[in-house]
Amino acid sequence: MSATLDNLKEVKKTYIQDLPNSKKVFVSGSCKDIRVPMREIIQSPTAKSDGSFEENPPVYVYDTTGSYTDPNEEIDLHKGIKKVREAWIEQRVDTEILENFSSKYFHNRQSKEELNTLRFPNIPKPRRAIKGKTITQMHYARAGIITPEMEFIAIRENCNLQKMKESGLLLKQHTGESFGANLPESYTPEFVRNEVAQGRAVIPANVNHPEIEPMIIGRNFMVKINANIGNSSTTSSIEEEVEKMIWATRWGGDTVMDLSTGANIHETREWIIRNSAVPIGTVPIYQALEKVDGVAENLTWEIFRDTLIEQAEQGVDYFTIHAGVRLRYIPMTADRLTGIVSRGGSIIAKWCLHHHKESFLYEHFEEMCEIMKSYDIAFSLGDGLRPGSIYDANDEAQFAELKTLGELTKIAWKHDVQVMIEGPGHVPMQMIKENMTKELKECYEAPFYTLGPLTMDIAPGYDHITSAIGAAQIGWYGTAMLCYVTPKEHLGLPNRDDVKEGIITYKIAAHAADLAKGFAGAQIRDNALSKARFEFRWADQFYLGFDPDRALEFHDETLPAVGAKVAHFCSMCGPKFCSMKITQDVRDYAKKKGLDESSALKDGMNEQAERFQEKENQMVGEIYEKI
Amino acid sequence: MSATLDNLKEVKKTYIQDLPNSKKVFVSGSCKDIRVPMREIIQSPTAKSDGSFEENPPVYVYDTTGSYTDPNEEIDLHKGIKKVREAWIEQRVDTEILENFSSKYFHNRQSKEELNTLRFPNIPKPRRAIKGKTITQMHYARAGIITPEMEFIAIRENCNLQKMKESGLLLKQHTGESFGANLPESYTPEFVRNEVAQGRAVIPANVNHPEIEPMIIGRNFMVKINANIGNSSTTSSIEEEVEKMIWATRWGGDTVMDLSTGANIHETREWIIRNSAVPIGTVPIYQALEKVDGVAENLTWEIFRDTLIEQAEQGVDYFTIHAGVRLRYIPMTADRLTGIVSRGGSIIAKWCLHHHKESFLYEHFEEMCEIMKSYDIAFSLGDGLRPGSIYDANDEAQFAELKTLGELTKIAWKHDVQVMIEGPGHVPMQMIKENMTKELKECYEAPFYTLGPLTMDIAPGYDHITSAIGAAQIGWYGTAMLCYVTPKEHLGLPNRDDVKEGIITYKIAAHAADLAKGFAGAQIRDNALSKARFEFRWADQFYLGFDPDRALEFHDETLPAVGAKVAHFCSMCGPKFCSMKITQDVRDYAKKKGLDESSALKDGMNEQAERFQEKENQMVGEIYEKI
Repeated sequence: MSATLDNLKEVKKTYIQDLPNSKKVFVSGSCKDIRVPMREIIQSPTAKSDGSFEENPPVYVYDTTGSYTDPNEEIDLHKGIKKVREAWIEQRVDTEILENFSSKYFHNRQSKEELNTLRFPNIPKPRRAIKGKTITQMHYARAGIITPEMEFIAIRENCNLQKMKESGLLLKQHTGESFGANLPESYTPEFVRNEVAQGRAVIPANVNHPEIEPMIIGRNFMVKINANIGNSSTTSSIEEEVEKMIWATRWGGDTVMDLSTGANIHETREWIIRNSAVPIGTVPIYQALEKVDGVAENLTWEIFRDTLIEQAEQGVDYFTIHAGVRLRYIPMTADRLTGIVSRGGSIIAKWCLHHHKESFLYEHFEEMCEIMKSYDIAFSLGDGLRPGSIYDANDEAQFAELKTLGELTKIAWKHDVQVMIEGPGHVPMQMIKENMTKELKECYEAPFYTLGPLTMDIAPGYDHITSAIGAAQIGWYGTAMLCYVTPKEHLGLPNRDDVKEGIITYKIAAHAADLAKGFAGAQIRDNALSKARFEFRWADQFYLGFDPDRALEFHDETLPAVGAKVAHFCSMCGPKFCSMKITQDVRDYAKKKGLDESSALKDGMNEQAERFQEKENQMVGEIYEKI
Repeated sequence: MSATLDNLKEVKKTYIQDLPNSKKVFVSGSCKDIRVPMREIIQSPTAKSDGSFEENPPVYVYDTTGSYTDPNEEIDLHKGIKKVREAWIEQRVDTEILENFSSKYFHNRQSKEELNTLRFPNIPKPRRAIKGKTITQMHYARAGIITPEMEFIAIRENCNLQKMKESGLLLKQHTGESFGANLPESYTPEFVRNEVAQGRAVIPANVNHPEIEPMIIGRNFMVKINANIGNSSTTSSIEEEVEKMIWATRWGGDTVMDLSTGANIHETREWIIRNSAVPIGTVPIYQALEKVDGVAENLTWEIFRDTLIEQAEQGVDYFTIHAGVRLRYIPMTADRLTGIVSRGGSIIAKWCLHHHKESFLYEHFEEMCEIMKSYDIAFSLGDGLRPGSIYDANDEAQFAELKTLGELTKIAWKHDVQVMIEGPGHVPMQMIKENMTKELKECYEAPFYTLGPLTMDIAPGYDHITSAIGAAQIGWYGTAMLCYVTPKEHLGLPNRDDVKEGIITYKIAAHAADLAKGFAGAQIRDNALSKARFEFRWADQFYLGFDPDRALEFHDETLPAVGAKVAHFCSMCGPKFCSMKITQDVRDYAKKKGLDESSALKDGMNEQAERFQEKENQMVGEIYEKI
């Protein structure tokens, strides 16, 4: 595994702490072990035309990068990252450490000597609820308990907004259009608790994944994004997948799904979880299918159940379960152009038809709830019948399944198990809203988690973009988490560059939605960057953006000289045609003449202002010249 | 200029005629010189499981690539491309060929011997309306005349829809939501004429640019895209700009704006126009400013007027004119975060303030109309006060200018001069609709032509994406043409790769809008590609997409073997997890058992069908197994 370590070192070089304008800070909660990470982006001062300087306060942004950007943390992939939540879980005294793992498959893998070199070296013993206890965040929330996780999240979602307000950074923010979302001015732990209690938000946090920095998925919070990683039978290694996870969170992934379907799924996942500060999701049916050599009809509840427990004890935070694929919905896909495009959905469909009965996922749903509430794993109810083409969008099969997902949500909630609902897929723009409206109604406002949707089929190689258009829109309407789509969609497994491109594209879609909904303070970063842009503070412009590296690289492609970083123009227009420069020139000119108050300028120009219009016509003339 | 020729040859290699599945075809109109180019994408047959083949008919798509993809045309940049419209213009006998050029600046350039090597070798003599004649497409339209240009456009917008319908390719298309647009089932020359007569659509077609293949910009037609090219004082050459134009149209640019602000603007433009089959737009104030060495206050109406005539006689098809920047609006920008971000807008603002009077553009607007109607140049009324940041979106200055653009539209229409209206800029999603609604009302439904809008400020390096989200949305609401934004926006001048990335991204935004509006037949290409995808016809999938080269390259990155092009899986999921393969397997299985009619499957599954439910319960069971 030394290759992994080496890769990591390389990754670290480009990490945030190495960017001169950024620094990792922690905001403390009510007790000292609640330390919420944020990225502080330090701005340079504005050089005024009179030679003085105006300070520009730092901007705080949500930080998903974990220990990897903390200069005070030593990273050793073989040990795993620090266990932020361990003490909180222990203090609740409702879990116990098991003497041994409960899954047969675990022991089967453990017995294979040839896997020794692949195995994570220090596998922690599993933790589970004490018999009779429910240990989900939803259970605590409904009991009126505010957990440290909830407090952590309230601080995290506030993103130091109060501090930025005090520094004068809020400036103006436009009114949002929130389609019924209820975004508070400021988050409180009680607000978080209530959202979780109502089922409107999910905190994925398996007790066997104490390494996570708690985060929340719900439409009354910032829109989140998920990055899919995972090997397939034709490509990729453990090292690459671990690196992709670190890389995905470095650029802003809020959760990561390990969708591995190839070799050594169990071992790959162990490395990923032990080194991940974000929740990890999986689709357990993938691994179950591997266990029956890819023959769907040979799947059994027993194999699937053992897989759930195997993954639960490793620390997976949420499971995609395609329990809504009911036998009688399958023929609804017969007239489709692209049939069933969900891998899980097609596996279950094949099983159902072969055995001519409802799937074991549907039949054993309550038993699954029992398992999931013993570890606090959230359901992500999969949309196995989502449309795979514009042609198939919003059809009978899709919406029939959605209704069933709503029924299953009620069952899960009865057990205090957290639930989110997965959504499409391929949907043209004019049909996206119906998806959101139906989901909120049929699934009782459980958080919606959508893949795109892709707004067309005809741009293979660019589906990160076709889907970002749909994702921004559905995020605005109320989707809580957007599953990224990379440029490789439909063509191949994403590599490291594709993962980054997918993440940044989805950060954009999510931010477009946050702005449109009117998320408190969402516009601060835009305002700060635009001020930097107008003032030709190039470095600040680069570092305030989602991808400082690319911004710098693009700028330097045509103007690499150091001097160009302070120049009042770029290669796009050159010095004479820079509108920003011209605007600044005229403002500076006005100022030199002693008219530094924009309100004075405006008053002066106001045709209604009599004192100017009648008596001081000449002065108005001067103002014109000076602005 | 031999470098240009060499570059061109290189470009040609990757051109459409070299893609084995595509071919350039022409659809004829009422007379034989109306030959409308289209790209025919030939599909391979579907291999059925019983060993037979099903033919897949060709798909016809709108083709902007001009002669460059016509294997029957010899390309010589030094001669320029063929003059499609020359005979039509001559037949109208309302123009005359001038003995000499009317612009002083032209003669000034012509006299410089050192420019001989830069100059286009065969500059055609200029053409102008015979005194007293109006020669605009709007004039003809209002007089009830259907021009060959209009007929050409009707055929072009239909895109062989009838033929595709006959071949059974239409399949299903979802109902659109058109926000008041009036999209016909099929275009007629009369429909085109009426739209132009009403001012709802523009056909940019200078009589000095007979090389163009006519196209139309209006919200009742397919959404169009524009690509900006042009050098700046810090970078680029004539060769590069000509290549960018060819490159931009190769990927789907409907018009190209030459925004050069550097050296040899006049000569660069000549090369571009003589070799361009799409309309060329410019911002004449840029060149005018070069003529006064960048000192805005030294601009005069005379210099500007000579620039208009100089460019008119070269063949520019539309002019961006910032005549809406009125003196009294300028102070409205004083409280802005990013001031005036339009280059043209800031130049005019500086001039107005310096001279303390309304701009010469506003004051001489009717005189400009006289010039433009003598060549048939369309106005693109510039939004000099567009917002350059989210903070400044939809403000007083922006909407004040828009109202003035509406007033100017009425004046231009009085002269039968065609008009489109430019729009923003930086606007968050929830505020985009107001832009469209106001534009339609204030500007009497003149076509809207927007730059994005960018839905946020914080993604330098990715503004093609931040803006595609806004562009798709505003295109859906009714914007007729979308000006692309490249990844280099705010950072530097786009290179060849950036131009392509910008074009494809905007083809995506425009197509998302066409689908959402319900443009007739828009979904055919999606349906065809999805069918190919489902049937693992990989090559068809690549060639039906916007960028066959990238699709192929991405696919081959992980599975380069020839065999993988016929494989029933890709590297994304591998063979066992391919949902499309599983779905096909179950359908094939059903078919083998003699149940090849999906309707039979559906009937069989229908719980309401008594004959199955009561009498043939066992048969239903079999059907389950077989699907």
